[in-house]
Amino acid sequence: MRLTRKYRFSASHRLHSAVLSEAENQRLYGKCNNPYGHGHDYTVEVSVRGPLDTATGRVVDLARLDQLVGRRMLARFDHKNLNADVPELSGVVPTTENLAREIGRSLEEVWSTEFPGGRPRLEKIRVAETDRNLFELNLLS
Amino acid sequence: MRLTRKYRFSASHRLHSAVLSEAENQRLYGKCNNPYGHGHDYTVEVSVRGPLDTATGRVVDLARLDQLVGRRMLARFDHKNLNADVPELSGVVPTTENLAREIGRSLEEVWSTEFPGGRPRLEKIRVAETDRNLFELNLLS
Amino acid sequence: MRLTRKYRFSASHRLHSAVLSEAENQRLYGKCNNPYGHGHDYTVEVSVRGPLDTATGRVVDLARLDQLVGRRMLARFDHKNLNADVPELSGVVPTTENLAREIGRSLEEVWSTEFPGGRPRLEKIRVAETDRNLFELNLLS
Amino acid sequence: MRLTRKYRFSASHRLHSAVLSEAENQRLYGKCNNPYGHGHDYTVEVSVRGPLDTATGRVVDLARLDQLVGRRMLARFDHKNLNADVPELSGVVPTTENLAREIGRSLEEVWSTEFPGGRPRLEKIRVAETDRNLFELNLLS
Amino acid sequence: MRLTRKYRFSASHRLHSAVLSEAENQRLYGKCNNPYGHGHDYTVEVSVRGPLDTATGRVVDLARLDQLVGRRMLARFDHKNLNADVPELSGVVPTTENLAREIGRSLEEVWSTEFPGGRPRLEKIRVAETDRNLFELNLLS
Amino acid sequence: MRLTRKYRFSASHRLHSAVLSEAENQRLYGKCNNPYGHGHDYTVEVSVRGPLDTATGRVVDLARLDQLVGRRMLARFDHKNLNADVPELSGVVPTTENLAREIGRSLEEVWSTEFPGGRPRLEKIRVAETDRNLFELNLLS
Repeated sequence: MRLTRKYRFSASHRLHSAVLSEAENQRLYGKCNNPYGHGHDYTVEVSVRGPLDTATGRVVDLARLDQLVGRRMLARFDHKNLNADVPELSGVVPTTENLAREIGRSLEEVWSTEFPGGRPRLEKIRVAETDRNLFELNLLS
Repeated sequence: MRLTRKYRFSASHRLHSAVLSEAENQRLYGKCNNPYGHGHDYTVEVSVRGPLDTATGRVVDLARLDQLVGRRMLARFDHKNLNADVPELSGVVPTTENLAREIGRSLEEVWSTEFPGGRPRLEKIRVAETDRNLFELNLLS
Repeated sequence: MRLTRKYRFSASHRLHSAVLSEAENQRLYGKCNNPYGHGHDYTVEVSVRGPLDTATGRVVDLARLDQLVGRRMLARFDHKNLNADVPELSGVVPTTENLAREIGRSLEEVWSTEFPGGRPRLEKIRVAETDRNLFELNLLS
Repeated sequence: MRLTRKYRFSASHRLHSAVLSEAENQRLYGKCNNPYGHGHDYTVEVSVRGPLDTATGRVVDLARLDQLVGRRMLARFDHKNLNADVPELSGVVPTTENLAREIGRSLEEVWSTEFPGGRPRLEKIRVAETDRNLFELNLLS
Repeated sequence: MRLTRKYRFSASHRLHSAVLSEAENQRLYGKCNNPYGHGHDYTVEVSVRGPLDTATGRVVDLARLDQLVGRRMLARFDHKNLNADVPELSGVVPTTENLAREIGRSLEEVWSTEFPGGRPRLEKIRVAETDRNLFELNLLS
Repeated sequence: MRLTRKYRFSASHRLHSAVLSEAENQRLYGKCNNPYGHGHDYTVEVSVRGPLDTATGRVVDLARLDQLVGRRMLARFDHKNLNADVPELSGVVPTTENLAREIGRSLEEVWSTEFPGGRPRLEKIRVAETDRNLFELNLLS
């Protein structure tokens, strides 16, 4: 069985690639390249998969999941500037693609310590930016 | 092609496991362990998969699907108390995980009678509890 | 300027009026009269009205509003049974109308202590039960 | 990584199959068989999958995707009558299933020209009709 | 206290005014002037206002309200073509403004028969067309 | 009749008041006071009120309204930093309250030129920040 739990945070960013010219940055990122940045309310869905614990009727201890996501994701991104506040994103353009990849990497790094035995497994990260764009990263492959 | 159809019902429950101590129940279920219960508006998505009927342009006869889901799910869970009103859930904690499993079991039990030849197949059940938690059960594996 | 802030809680109830016959209860409340109750995810919007504070750019101190609503509303209704857990609703049918009235009464009771000078004023309570029914109570009249 | 981008359009249609009797049309399509048609606000999600471009941090050039979907989908279906305005749907019942199939076919037809080398690949089309029915077409299989 | 209840229906229409030139119709209605029409999923909110009945805890008998709205609104507009199927809209452009006005007129016509003594009063009609446009008609003034 | 039309934009801001101490800024704005800012997806509803034009069946020419709102609101705020990019907000804390006030002021400034004779009137501005906070400004009083 798969459980998906939804989290939200607000952050700002500016899309600008150091290896592209000004004109290319303008064409590629459009308004997202504006010099002083802008922001979004992001929604992140974390999906885990595992067997039901027959004693508790649960796939995962939600309090433990929330505690982990709070520490590894919300504390680092909520009400932050993705260009200035997140060392792990320095050197890459803070697109939602790279943000999703960093969230996945950060959760995977400590997953087996928090959930030993791979129960449940961390399966998928989905990050929505505005209500039109959704980015999914499959972590089981 | 896959069709997903959405249904809603309202029910109450109390999460309490007979094999755990009071303290463990408190820690694990938090407010969901409050003695007199609480409730939710559940959303259930039923996904079926099959070829298009060229005469009708449909994957499934929606009236037949609604009739089946009405009888096997809505009639048993809508405006009911999951602890008191559902014999099939007695002996298990009425978490959304166990609720999803019972919905899947109940639809599968009569599926081949209602839709002979496996057209369409019953593929997936997704149950949302509040707008933060979503439980998915893959029925094809 | 008016600020509306949204809160959510989950609760269970059973609609049954002691002054009506069984048949009248059945006809009037339908499935909401089922003996063991059911539940909903309620959304409550609290609207306040006042001038902008020029130093802060705010109509209301949100932390203080959240603290007040948490104590007077969420602590009493979230994950509770409206028939069994709320003494103030005993003797009335726990319809969303009566729930909205009790929420309004409870906030008004302490409003002038929390927000002296009537800044901001408590203007409106809106309670949504499922996504089809919305109940509004104007508190300024 | 998978990107899903959401588009909307409004269209009208009437469901009526030339190979079925009046009575069968009535039973099968119900109100959707009413003689003068009706309409919906459709939501279409287009999913593409590919590697991240390290220079841009993107899976796909969104401007190019929007331009393609605008030309192959929105220009043909938005504010149109699916029975009268879309030659490609003539001879089939304009159910959402057939609409999804035509959208998929039309995007696939030019995909390799617009996105040479299969980067990104076109993966999935999801069409929602009202907020209860969702149709998905997997284009990778 | 005010109760707002939400209803949905799907309909098609074409916006074209007989007293305007082709060019003016084109400029004013844009794609909504396309010759074969298009459609929408409409949401209608009906607001009523009245005192609480102390025996029932209700502002209005919901079954009676649903029965009235079903007969006077849903039966006439759901899965219909507003240009061809609704005699009361003939001679006017079936904009959402005129649709809202006709819904209000039709409910007002029988309101005092269905709810004698003006309890509750019919207060407001709100019609949403797509998720961007909302039309409100105050019926108490 | 009242028409409400919904617009969206994305922007970043930092809440910090020059007339308050660091400690007061921290306590009052919490995470919104973080030094490098954050951002939101804002939704703005613009409400206008007027009589129906019998020739067109409309309250307002939507193309003209969109053109005005595009020029006076979206061009100035969409994908911008409210602290750095908006001279009219310099000297005030860019709370959503002050943002709503500036949007209202800016539309009112040119309203009578765009819509001579006060048809329709500009009635209300509602700005939503995340899905929990809504700010309303009545412009008719």
